[in-house]
Amino acid sequence: MSKVAVIGAGSWGTALSIVLSDNGHDVRLWTHRKEQADMINNQHVNENYLKVNLPENIKAYDDLHSAIDDVKAIILVVPTKAIREVSQQLNRLLKKKITIIHATKGIEPESLKRVSQMISEELDSYSYEDIVVLSGPSHAEEVGKRLPTTVTVSSLDSSNAKLAQDLFINESFRVYTSPDVVGIELGGALKNIIALGAGISDGLGYGDNAKAALITRGLAEITRLGTSLGANPLTFLGLPGVGDLIVTCTSVHSRNWRAGNLLGKGHKLDEVLDQMGMVVEGVRTAKAAYQFAEDQEIEMPITAGIYQILFENKYPREVVEQLMSRNKREEMDDLAELIGGNYSK
Amino acid sequence: MSKVAVIGAGSWGTALSIVLSDNGHDVRLWTHRKEQADMINNQHVNENYLKVNLPENIKAYDDLHSAIDDVKAIILVVPTKAIREVSQQLNRLLKKKITIIHATKGIEPESLKRVSQMISEELDSYSYEDIVVLSGPSHAEEVGKRLPTTVTVSSLDSSNAKLAQDLFINESFRVYTSPDVVGIELGGALKNIIALGAGISDGLGYGDNAKAALITRGLAEITRLGTSLGANPLTFLGLPGVGDLIVTCTSVHSRNWRAGNLLGKGHKLDEVLDQMGMVVEGVRTAKAAYQFAEDQEIEMPITAGIYQILFENKYPREVVEQLMSRNKREEMDDLAELIGGNYSK
Repeated sequence: MSKVAVIGAGSWGTALSIVLSDNGHDVRLWTHRKEQADMINNQHVNENYLKVNLPENIKAYDDLHSAIDDVKAIILVVPTKAIREVSQQLNRLLKKKITIIHATKGIEPESLKRVSQMISEELDSYSYEDIVVLSGPSHAEEVGKRLPTTVTVSSLDSSNAKLAQDLFINESFRVYTSPDVVGIELGGALKNIIALGAGISDGLGYGDNAKAALITRGLAEITRLGTSLGANPLTFLGLPGVGDLIVTCTSVHSRNWRAGNLLGKGHKLDEVLDQMGMVVEGVRTAKAAYQFAEDQEIEMPITAGIYQILFENKYPREVVEQLMSRNKREEMDDLAELIGGNYSK
Repeated sequence: MSKVAVIGAGSWGTALSIVLSDNGHDVRLWTHRKEQADMINNQHVNENYLKVNLPENIKAYDDLHSAIDDVKAIILVVPTKAIREVSQQLNRLLKKKITIIHATKGIEPESLKRVSQMISEELDSYSYEDIVVLSGPSHAEEVGKRLPTTVTVSSLDSSNAKLAQDLFINESFRVYTSPDVVGIELGGALKNIIALGAGISDGLGYGDNAKAALITRGLAEITRLGTSLGANPLTFLGLPGVGDLIVTCTSVHSRNWRAGNLLGKGHKLDEVLDQMGMVVEGVRTAKAAYQFAEDQEIEMPITAGIYQILFENKYPREVVEQLMSRNKREEMDDLAELIGGNYSK
């Protein structure tokens, strides 16, 4: 049993803290807000993020230096747009090389860099191989209730991945390893775009048949972008792809789905983001993926449609109808090509 | 516009009749129950199966001879266990070769034959190439309400598939063609096994995280069985695989999910089937798939677990926990092998 720091006290950071605490670790949960740290320490709840009582061996800190002092591992779970800033702070504080695991699902607009790349660029004594990603189909709310959950950890340095697996694994939280860092990170990030689309479809009053078609095509689309960035296409058929898509697109727990649902009901993006009060990673990810797909001439019709709804005021109904009338065959053929199979015409 | 016969007035037969009626065809909907035919003709409802008003150009018949007289195409939508008997009746009545399209999702226990094989074996003047299958992620309830839906039709004779596409396609019901008859039929049938499992998981009180893991592994498992029977593995990544799995496993509309849900809550199979009052195809399909997998030594842990719950009185919780603790890596590797990709260890 050892000390571990969880940096970021949103719902996912809090849920992961519970897993670590259940495994007997002393958890230091960092937030930049003093009143949130006080609530966690005094009342053992984090009520705006996760409706469960927190174990007493989770201690909150609003001071990063104290939070990471003498810890065995650091779990980074801040929003994608805060990754570089928090990593810079860590860079000033870290006295020795500690395993860093991140559980943030997003990509950087413009650069399309993944979170592990962003972190390693900001840390002087770390390289990209050192960083571990943890991702998979996992609503924080269910993890907080110890409901069965499976995730994947990945790092180019497999001993780091193994350390992360050992830290987190228990009876209700199953942790698998994978060598495909790129695929694991992109699967987790890109599925949020499709979740926005699924929410939009539901918000418009379409049913499960339409949503299943959208998710199926969405899988082909994110596989296409993912492989162009170096992911193994098969990763998208596993937990970080199909699994995470299903969880995020079919559940009211998903904040990306909820944001999409409001958009489908006619609300504008600004209103939706105000109403959510939490970070909706899919919005930034859609922008990043759209720009990259345009530059590289990668066919991503769903992403393009969602980009138009988000940033060009296009009517959701118009976009969905346009998507529904596309020819599916092309996409199956593209997927076949990517995977190297043979789907004859 | 032409006359078409829909043989089988359950919820799916009724929904497909509405699509054909919307496309201007005269629909002759056959049921073996006179009181059901009378209700459809007099009140224009089929209230035990689909809660919508039926267009007046859907006429019901309880006499098969009149139903198929002078029709351009026959749509067979009876339960799998009635396919051979109804096909034998058709064999006696058919005077010329009419296009036969089936929309029944099941396989035959023992023989593991698909529906198109069963039909063609019973019809003297037809061969297997003549039969068309229609399948995809499509709750009848949503099709009855004209909500957007996508399906796939397939036949070894592509002119028959094209005819089926032309009959059914409209703005809200998108019909694609595929050359993979085997994959389309098996995807539709085998997904019902996983839907039982998803219902069991929900009935036990597990959450979306557990269900997503089950569906993801289920996809690998049905792909493995499907390819061993000659299907193209890529078919399972499209609408007839991933798409239909999502619809059937995540929606309360699905009767296989509902049956599984009751099993998960502790009811016995007999009680569940009594309570459902409709055919639960997944039960027979699970038996068929389990027996075949045992014979051929194909690894199908989810199917085996569901077989044990259905036919060997094993406790659902025990089975699900056993499945959760398996090593996922094996399954990813198997899938990689099937598709010919490279998922390095």
